[in-house]
Amino acid sequence: MKIAVAGLGLIGGSFALALKKRTSHTVLGLDADPETVRAAISFGAVDEIISPDRLDRAELSLIALPPRAALTFLQEQAPRFAEGSLVADLCGVKEKIVAAGEAALHPRTAFLGCHPMAGKEKGGFANASADLFEGASLILTPTPNTPPKAVKVLTDLAAEVGFGRVALSSPAEHDRIIAFTSQLCHAVSGAYVQSPMADLAAGFTGGSYEDFTRVAEMDPALWSQLFAENRENLLAELAGLRERLAELEGHLRRGEEEALRALLKSWSDRKKELLRAGKTEA
Amino acid sequence: MKIAVAGLGLIGGSFALALKKRTSHTVLGLDADPETVRAAISFGAVDEIISPDRLDRAELSLIALPPRAALTFLQEQAPRFAEGSLVADLCGVKEKIVAAGEAALHPRTAFLGCHPMAGKEKGGFANASADLFEGASLILTPTPNTPPKAVKVLTDLAAEVGFGRVALSSPAEHDRIIAFTSQLCHAVSGAYVQSPMADLAAGFTGGSYEDFTRVAEMDPALWSQLFAENRENLLAELAGLRERLAELEGHLRRGEEEALRALLKSWSDRKKELLRAGKTEA
Repeated sequence: MKIAVAGLGLIGGSFALALKKRTSHTVLGLDADPETVRAAISFGAVDEIISPDRLDRAELSLIALPPRAALTFLQEQAPRFAEGSLVADLCGVKEKIVAAGEAALHPRTAFLGCHPMAGKEKGGFANASADLFEGASLILTPTPNTPPKAVKVLTDLAAEVGFGRVALSSPAEHDRIIAFTSQLCHAVSGAYVQSPMADLAAGFTGGSYEDFTRVAEMDPALWSQLFAENRENLLAELAGLRERLAELEGHLRRGEEEALRALLKSWSDRKKELLRAGKTEA
Repeated sequence: MKIAVAGLGLIGGSFALALKKRTSHTVLGLDADPETVRAAISFGAVDEIISPDRLDRAELSLIALPPRAALTFLQEQAPRFAEGSLVADLCGVKEKIVAAGEAALHPRTAFLGCHPMAGKEKGGFANASADLFEGASLILTPTPNTPPKAVKVLTDLAAEVGFGRVALSSPAEHDRIIAFTSQLCHAVSGAYVQSPMADLAAGFTGGSYEDFTRVAEMDPALWSQLFAENRENLLAELAGLRERLAELEGHLRRGEEEALRALLKSWSDRKKELLRAGKTEA
């Protein structure tokens, strides 16, 4: 299959490297940055660099750009994708881009939203790796307009490039869940390390502190866009977390130790139940 | 050296197992639970089980009980520790117990607060391991009353049982830092998984979600006690985190994307600076 990868940063670059390392598909790369293009060629991430007017050569086009750039790219390049081909984006928010993709493309060009659940604190092709997706989940967000074949193509490709599983949801459900499983983690981790105590933490930490602060380093341009594009869902999660912590604070402040213990028991029991039900892994 | 270990749960049991596996010290074990005693003997964690009236045989006594039980034990057994011996507790909060230990013991019996920065979601001897402390930090909280020799004895022992480093602080500073590096993690992790979205998270998670929710399972009796005993410090950290998240929420709610981006940049920059300065490891 001829696969175009538009955007050769951390995600697109890793996809391209994985395709070249693990499959026999042909990779046509696009990137606006000449440095990135040079690096992608020299590391063998692409068979060929193409300009957008040759997107018609691709049977599958993967858009690996930040959400707004992806939207613009889709709308500007819509007439160039081949009829009968499949276009997929790899953004971290889905509802808006899937609607825009479906609206912009020719009716005989399929669109499918994808979200690879893998990343790194540092972006760019320099941090891309053929193994980034090893064992990770690829979320696909088909709609009633998505041809079943599109889901099959991406499911097969996911296995080829090393993903451990594929998860399906609607674009709206994706955005609700991801606000909780990814965006809230990044927001809290960033806020966490701002405590003045962080300067004194060395030697006073076990595994939990390292776990909590790992993703506090993030690309502000990308993450502010992801947060803003998923505002309502993230606000709901932030409010929920705030309310639950306020309950704990209340018991602590009022010295209600029995209630505090009951609260921690109910929290801990829910974690155990999630583990038991296979709804969480760690 | 003859070392008494009072309380053979996760921490005391692991200490005893590590002493037996890695050193030639003699381990005298104490535990109120007959099951635990049987297990400790059969797994070779102790050379001998003693009753509290034989604590006078120990050159070093390690109190590995939850904070309040440790306090009671120290006060009740104070007359039994040998003059010239060293008593150390292994609790996760230090200010109150160090003051009580110093007040209760004979002036010629030294007291030193210790806090091993290692643990597991599940407690008890059944989860104890000779390798629990491998590479971890042991915090020592000497006061002006602590003989320097006591710090040396515990520093040497820490290396023998596998700790990777020793950190020193006053008991009060320990409690301030630990509210941030350990207790706040557990509080937030517990609150985190209460979102209704956690039921839908499987397949929608990358590493950050697993990291955030790992310690949500905790012993409610132990952690409610640790939180309550360190109330003021934990309340201060909870308030700080709440205020920082409220700032992010405000920008999001009002659609101030530039301010949101600047906030995330300052948060991310602080994490980078902490890493650069060697103040955090991950």
